[in-house]
Amino acid sequence: MLNAMGKAAKQASYQLSTLSTAEKNRALLAIADMLEANSQSIIQANELDMSAARESGMTEALLDRLLLTPARLFAIASDVRDVCRLSDPVGQVIDGSTQDGGLRLQRRRVPLGVVGVIYEARPNVTIDVASLCLKTGNAAILRGGKETHHTNQATVKVLQQALEQCGLPKAAIQAIDSPDRALVAEMLRLDQYIDMLIPRGGAALHKLCREQSTIPVITGGIGVCHTFVDDNVDFANALTVIENAKVQRPSACNSLETLLVHQAIAAQFLPELSARMHAVGVTLHASESAMPHLQNGPATVVAVAEEDYSDEWLSLDLNVTVVADIDAAIAHIRAYGTEHSDAILTRSISQADRFVNEVDSSAVYVNASTRFTDGGQFGLGAEVAVSTQKLHARGPMGLEALTTYKWIGYGDDLVRP
Amino acid sequence: MLNAMGKAAKQASYQLSTLSTAEKNRALLAIADMLEANSQSIIQANELDMSAARESGMTEALLDRLLLTPARLFAIASDVRDVCRLSDPVGQVIDGSTQDGGLRLQRRRVPLGVVGVIYEARPNVTIDVASLCLKTGNAAILRGGKETHHTNQATVKVLQQALEQCGLPKAAIQAIDSPDRALVAEMLRLDQYIDMLIPRGGAALHKLCREQSTIPVITGGIGVCHTFVDDNVDFANALTVIENAKVQRPSACNSLETLLVHQAIAAQFLPELSARMHAVGVTLHASESAMPHLQNGPATVVAVAEEDYSDEWLSLDLNVTVVADIDAAIAHIRAYGTEHSDAILTRSISQADRFVNEVDSSAVYVNASTRFTDGGQFGLGAEVAVSTQKLHARGPMGLEALTTYKWIGYGDDLVRP
Repeated sequence: MLNAMGKAAKQASYQLSTLSTAEKNRALLAIADMLEANSQSIIQANELDMSAARESGMTEALLDRLLLTPARLFAIASDVRDVCRLSDPVGQVIDGSTQDGGLRLQRRRVPLGVVGVIYEARPNVTIDVASLCLKTGNAAILRGGKETHHTNQATVKVLQQALEQCGLPKAAIQAIDSPDRALVAEMLRLDQYIDMLIPRGGAALHKLCREQSTIPVITGGIGVCHTFVDDNVDFANALTVIENAKVQRPSACNSLETLLVHQAIAAQFLPELSARMHAVGVTLHASESAMPHLQNGPATVVAVAEEDYSDEWLSLDLNVTVVADIDAAIAHIRAYGTEHSDAILTRSISQADRFVNEVDSSAVYVNASTRFTDGGQFGLGAEVAVSTQKLHARGPMGLEALTTYKWIGYGDDLVRP
Repeated sequence: MLNAMGKAAKQASYQLSTLSTAEKNRALLAIADMLEANSQSIIQANELDMSAARESGMTEALLDRLLLTPARLFAIASDVRDVCRLSDPVGQVIDGSTQDGGLRLQRRRVPLGVVGVIYEARPNVTIDVASLCLKTGNAAILRGGKETHHTNQATVKVLQQALEQCGLPKAAIQAIDSPDRALVAEMLRLDQYIDMLIPRGGAALHKLCREQSTIPVITGGIGVCHTFVDDNVDFANALTVIENAKVQRPSACNSLETLLVHQAIAAQFLPELSARMHAVGVTLHASESAMPHLQNGPATVVAVAEEDYSDEWLSLDLNVTVVADIDAAIAHIRAYGTEHSDAILTRSISQADRFVNEVDSSAVYVNASTRFTDGGQFGLGAEVAVSTQKLHARGPMGLEALTTYKWIGYGDDLVRP
């Protein structure tokens, strides 16, 4: 079954790859209009998913993530219209040259072809991914979580109607609409048709894809993020950055998980940290070196366990440890980090340079919150995913990450000498 | 065992990543000097491999590929000196901007970290890969074919001596020196330490890596390359390009395997093709549509089998078929090609544009030989591999393909709003 889907997607991708930006934008506008016009059918389908989720005992937080309201759906349609305004990377000439023998060469940006996305219970991802793929001339095969099964089915139906209305193949956007998990394994081996696979979900999904997929995978999204506080900082400013990194949205992958404090300031800084974290409800997980300076402070403090250093809290919890110097800080980040986002707070140019050069993460910050790692904050206009691997794209992935290039060589009946 | 090797490579990569271009070039020169100074030990080791290979009944062609002579080794040392002259991509700022909130952002090119390479019986690859990795600040873990076991061992010993002489960690270049095949499977799962895996070998090796590796893999090297002869060409020129593409080096992955001829010229063109191919010893494998025009010609001609269209000949054999038009040519290439290198010979701008836009290959040529797909011909200065996948790098991979980038954000104690 997936084979036929893959074949149809590949065929559709050939047509999409030759569309002009204006043609693609017309289809995006049609999608936005039809999402609004058909909001009722999508919301009815969402109600089925919601009641099944309630029966299964889903938490309120997850239920809220699953819920589509007319307002939310109209906001998503508006996001689709925003995608029209993004510049289209397809067709850009990256570079070119004329070789000595006369070959006129250029590298031109082209769509990837077929993009596969596996995601969990977020109904907006279906439309997000579909619109970003369409904008870049890619066909998409989507596999949403079983919790959003009805919503996704109804959504994709509307997306496909819009495509057909614009004379485009409906196989450009397809969803695997059975909740059967065996289909994921099948999808992961569809390398004949799918050119890139993006898992959007937790560590287990990324691990599954990395181990099972024969399609090139973009892994990422797991962020054990650090901030190192050097011995020369303004305490009030440092605490403001730390609070932002930890508290603004603790469930995000770019939120702060472990604070590394220079030993020279630990005795003065950590009590102030305790007061500030107490005020915003953060529980501290202190190392043996940090504990003496935290145990009399107002914030709740417990002993950190070794394994806490390698896991995301994604909650109002923060590991705190004291390090001898920047070398120890960098060593800690190399040992426990996930190469997502790490920051140094310092007044020293040389320390900042060392941190930037030696910490091997997708995003490295000097005197800024780790929370900035985001396609919107980076001015990419859209975010397909956040990659923590090093091939193809690193960090927030914008539209360019949905493209590849081809070499085009022009000659005059030219042969290789 | 490989785990310790991976760990040491990762540790070495941290040191390599901070070297200046001058420091890296000094190490490259030391390597070239020491290869020459120690040529005797390497050539003695190569003699062991050669006699084992002779006993095992290796073909003359493969024996020649395995053989190292003083002249060949000095040529390789000279190639290493050439790598010094290549510009170093590491440290380049790809782009940058100041975001509205004040975040000063840049994308800086950095080494990948640790590169794994699996290759067959070519002793030069060890030195090639090591020098390109060193130039880009990457550590390398090499796994050569068992046929070159002694040669590789002796070579890596010399490379490591040169590294140590320059104060660099010898773990920067390591070889898996046991011929045990189980170690390949272990290497493929070393994702904790190896950042990119490059298989250099046949289709079976690429398939193994794609299926088993948990490390991002660059696959490629398999080229079922096509040339479509449109109905408006100069026959003599076309035949010259075809001869070059097929005959210049038939064992290369960018050599021509299937010729697609427009039906309007088949009756006139194919007899001339037969004469030309006969002159250079090419056997034609003709489709039913091509056979009537070839069977009375001088070239040896046999019926093509369906499966011949999907395989590389890598020999003086050429599939020939007649197609109704450019649509049929493109459909054939989509069905049987490997997205490596494909060419059109035509005088028509519109046909050339269609071919370039609709054939989804790493390299697409207009009026040029497919043999141009090569790092040297493309002016890349060096070639790490040829990728036929779409992520990270496509087509010939130069030094840039051995790098990734990091995002660096500077603020003034900046928080995300």
